[in-house]
Amino acid sequence: MNTFFNVEDLGNLQQALDEAKKVKANRYAYQELGKNKTLLMIFFNNSLRTRLSTQKAATNLGMNVIVLDVNAGAWKLETERDVVMDGDKSEHLLEAIPVMASYCDIIAVRSFAGLVDREFDYAETIVQQFVRYSGRPVLAMETATVHPLQAFADLITIEEYKTKARPKVVLTWAPHCKALPQAVPNSFAQWMNAADVDFVITHPEGYELDPKFVGRARIEHNQKRAFAAADFIYAKNWSCPGVKNAADYGKILSREMSWTVDEEHMSWTDNAFFMHCLPVRRGLIVTDEVIGSPKSIVIPEAANREISAEVVLKKMLESLSSQSYSTL
Amino acid sequence: MNTFFNVEDLGNLQQALDEAKKVKANRYAYQELGKNKTLLMIFFNNSLRTRLSTQKAATNLGMNVIVLDVNAGAWKLETERDVVMDGDKSEHLLEAIPVMASYCDIIAVRSFAGLVDREFDYAETIVQQFVRYSGRPVLAMETATVHPLQAFADLITIEEYKTKARPKVVLTWAPHCKALPQAVPNSFAQWMNAADVDFVITHPEGYELDPKFVGRARIEHNQKRAFAAADFIYAKNWSCPGVKNAADYGKILSREMSWTVDEEHMSWTDNAFFMHCLPVRRGLIVTDEVIGSPKSIVIPEAANREISAEVVLKKMLESLSSQSYSTL
Amino acid sequence: MNTFFNVEDLGNLQQALDEAKKVKANRYAYQELGKNKTLLMIFFNNSLRTRLSTQKAATNLGMNVIVLDVNAGAWKLETERDVVMDGDKSEHLLEAIPVMASYCDIIAVRSFAGLVDREFDYAETIVQQFVRYSGRPVLAMETATVHPLQAFADLITIEEYKTKARPKVVLTWAPHCKALPQAVPNSFAQWMNAADVDFVITHPEGYELDPKFVGRARIEHNQKRAFAAADFIYAKNWSCPGVKNAADYGKILSREMSWTVDEEHMSWTDNAFFMHCLPVRRGLIVTDEVIGSPKSIVIPEAANREISAEVVLKKMLESLSSQSYSTL
Repeated sequence: MNTFFNVEDLGNLQQALDEAKKVKANRYAYQELGKNKTLLMIFFNNSLRTRLSTQKAATNLGMNVIVLDVNAGAWKLETERDVVMDGDKSEHLLEAIPVMASYCDIIAVRSFAGLVDREFDYAETIVQQFVRYSGRPVLAMETATVHPLQAFADLITIEEYKTKARPKVVLTWAPHCKALPQAVPNSFAQWMNAADVDFVITHPEGYELDPKFVGRARIEHNQKRAFAAADFIYAKNWSCPGVKNAADYGKILSREMSWTVDEEHMSWTDNAFFMHCLPVRRGLIVTDEVIGSPKSIVIPEAANREISAEVVLKKMLESLSSQSYSTL
Repeated sequence: MNTFFNVEDLGNLQQALDEAKKVKANRYAYQELGKNKTLLMIFFNNSLRTRLSTQKAATNLGMNVIVLDVNAGAWKLETERDVVMDGDKSEHLLEAIPVMASYCDIIAVRSFAGLVDREFDYAETIVQQFVRYSGRPVLAMETATVHPLQAFADLITIEEYKTKARPKVVLTWAPHCKALPQAVPNSFAQWMNAADVDFVITHPEGYELDPKFVGRARIEHNQKRAFAAADFIYAKNWSCPGVKNAADYGKILSREMSWTVDEEHMSWTDNAFFMHCLPVRRGLIVTDEVIGSPKSIVIPEAANREISAEVVLKKMLESLSSQSYSTL
Repeated sequence: MNTFFNVEDLGNLQQALDEAKKVKANRYAYQELGKNKTLLMIFFNNSLRTRLSTQKAATNLGMNVIVLDVNAGAWKLETERDVVMDGDKSEHLLEAIPVMASYCDIIAVRSFAGLVDREFDYAETIVQQFVRYSGRPVLAMETATVHPLQAFADLITIEEYKTKARPKVVLTWAPHCKALPQAVPNSFAQWMNAADVDFVITHPEGYELDPKFVGRARIEHNQKRAFAAADFIYAKNWSCPGVKNAADYGKILSREMSWTVDEEHMSWTDNAFFMHCLPVRRGLIVTDEVIGSPKSIVIPEAANREISAEVVLKKMLESLSSQSYSTL
């Protein structure tokens, strides 16, 4: 596996879920694979879960890890082409990427959507340069449009908690005080479409996700109807994806607090589990009561981030041939 | 050992000192203990010694270490209960703690006193949440009221340098330009009370430490009388502990430069050693002459921070049963 | 080897180049050397290449690495002598250095020129304190006046790419929007003087490098004449070294864009390779065409930073006697 952005990158999804089970049962069993292999984790944005879980997963596999916070202690990087670099950015990605690649075997990148230029974001302009110029396997730790380590962990969690062969999973928009990217709902939709679940998305008008992620999901604008008979409620805020009106891209179109998931909302479901990728704003996305209830599985969901990352890194390490370390 | 905040947590103190001697003589002898165990070091505040020495100690024991600077590269954490999180804090400790815990085996936390709300600080509101919600052994790297790794290193150092069976140890307040917490003097007092020393505390009126830390120590407001026949002078600034007047908590009540430890002060002692936990403000706490003299043992004192941390981590690792890694 | 600042520190240069070849062919072959040895990397300034390549090199050798960003997460350090420390700096280098040293076996320091006080910078006031007070081998990761890991990597690269026994190497000044230190050109000049190359330096009047680095190099103020028959063009900006007029130290004397290396400049050479230490400002130092051309070897040059660092650390580890870990 040379890139990890989309569910297809994993190959057979059921086999990947079986692998996750195996890894979770014995997370230190594959340390020979990572010996003398270095993971470089590059952060253009903040991180808690992703930073810790990916580092832990790499260490489980015997890898060395180098963490680079681009905005703390490194040079600011120019990402635009054909500019005279007389501003505050000391280095161009065109140099920085192959240089960073030369000191590692696998690159993991976090680079959020700017939410200003839809085309720039949805073309994955930043991370695609890593794919193109690094010559190394590249792993998304949340990009402009996808967060596959999260979605894989979500699916592992649903597999662990489901009590029906084909559970009903509902992705619901919820209000937030800041304009957030669509990476999490995009990937969640993509992965649910690939999984054997009954998948419904609910959100106010104007929050339509990009069709390439929505796929065959059912859209229901009435949140109560969407929640009916649900087995899993997956709450998340996102800003306007700009599908119907590109000019609205990245805007907050609604602050409708009736969408906050509270106990009444959960009473509409079939005693559903509550999920969220975290970090979560209590009082906006979800009430204290719901996130603190026994049906809230946000912590085991987060814990599975270690497992999804370990499966992905393990597959990348297996793909690295012994002669892969190019002596540049 | 499941927590390390107070001297009692160590169990038998003499045995712990013997263990420190053993560890210092052979600090790499216990690497099997830490294999595939991860220490998560969480910093809400700056650190030099604690960061380096604790990381070194964990590595000595064969552990993996993940360092998280909460204010650099991670999300800001909400620590209050029952709030609508519409400010700058993206995540609540109630989620962050169990999530962070799920990626590690032992948690070390640094979280200083805010010096605003005495009750909040002295209840150890932040770190007690780590104890309560992490399900992991929790280790203080200086909390609102204690700094036990420092006090343990101080005692190890006194044991190494003492020339009498029961030396006289004096904790003296000294002036400073900033309002500092009481964690270091609190712990030092607690540990000296538990050790076999003649222990005296001297400070200006109004700087009385909390009785639970002062214990059976002698208080002497006349610094010169306190220094008489001393074998060890331990200098430290602290702000008003608010014992006599809670409204003064965290305030600077005195900038009296006559309390700065200089050569004249040291002449009152029995050729005492000079100690300080560092960092130290030269010219305020102590003069260049005293801290630079052959009787200054601040460097070996700091070097013993590696040893105190290694003993504590070793004890925690020994307590972790083989099945302790809960698969959340 | 106890310090690494100048080319002489390496001993026989040809042997060091042979060692580099050996290390590059098998970079994981020396892990017993670094077992239970800790490298402390101290950054007073930003870093990308140096941070990653030095960390990678140490890990290749089996070392543990602790990274300390002095301006992020640690205390600000006082570097002046005989001051009352009542400002924003909490700790003096005189304490910080031996303390940091007590937790590691080798220290690597990055501390750039301030470009304000020539005497302070050229006396290497900061790093010389590390040499004097740490009791540990000290390695420059760019100091006020030298960047030997870069110059060693540059020489390794020239050795790999040269097609003549004695190639012509030209160090050329180029314009920049910020005042930069002279560390890179100083070290490059020093190393080229020690190597078997025909070495020419070209720059506008006023940019004369310090004679102790220029040595026997030929100076040519006409850039075109300098480039004639060159095999390697090494571009770099530097601010006024203050050799002719100390009052100009650190100033930008020229923004002459005719010095930017473009295709016409390269046409004056004997089909020369283009080198730069990176980060490079495109459009100022060099055009997109030249740095993106097949003759640009900036990426393999940067990749060799891992090799130069590994050779240096390997030599330092070999020098550490088994009893070297002083139990302070």
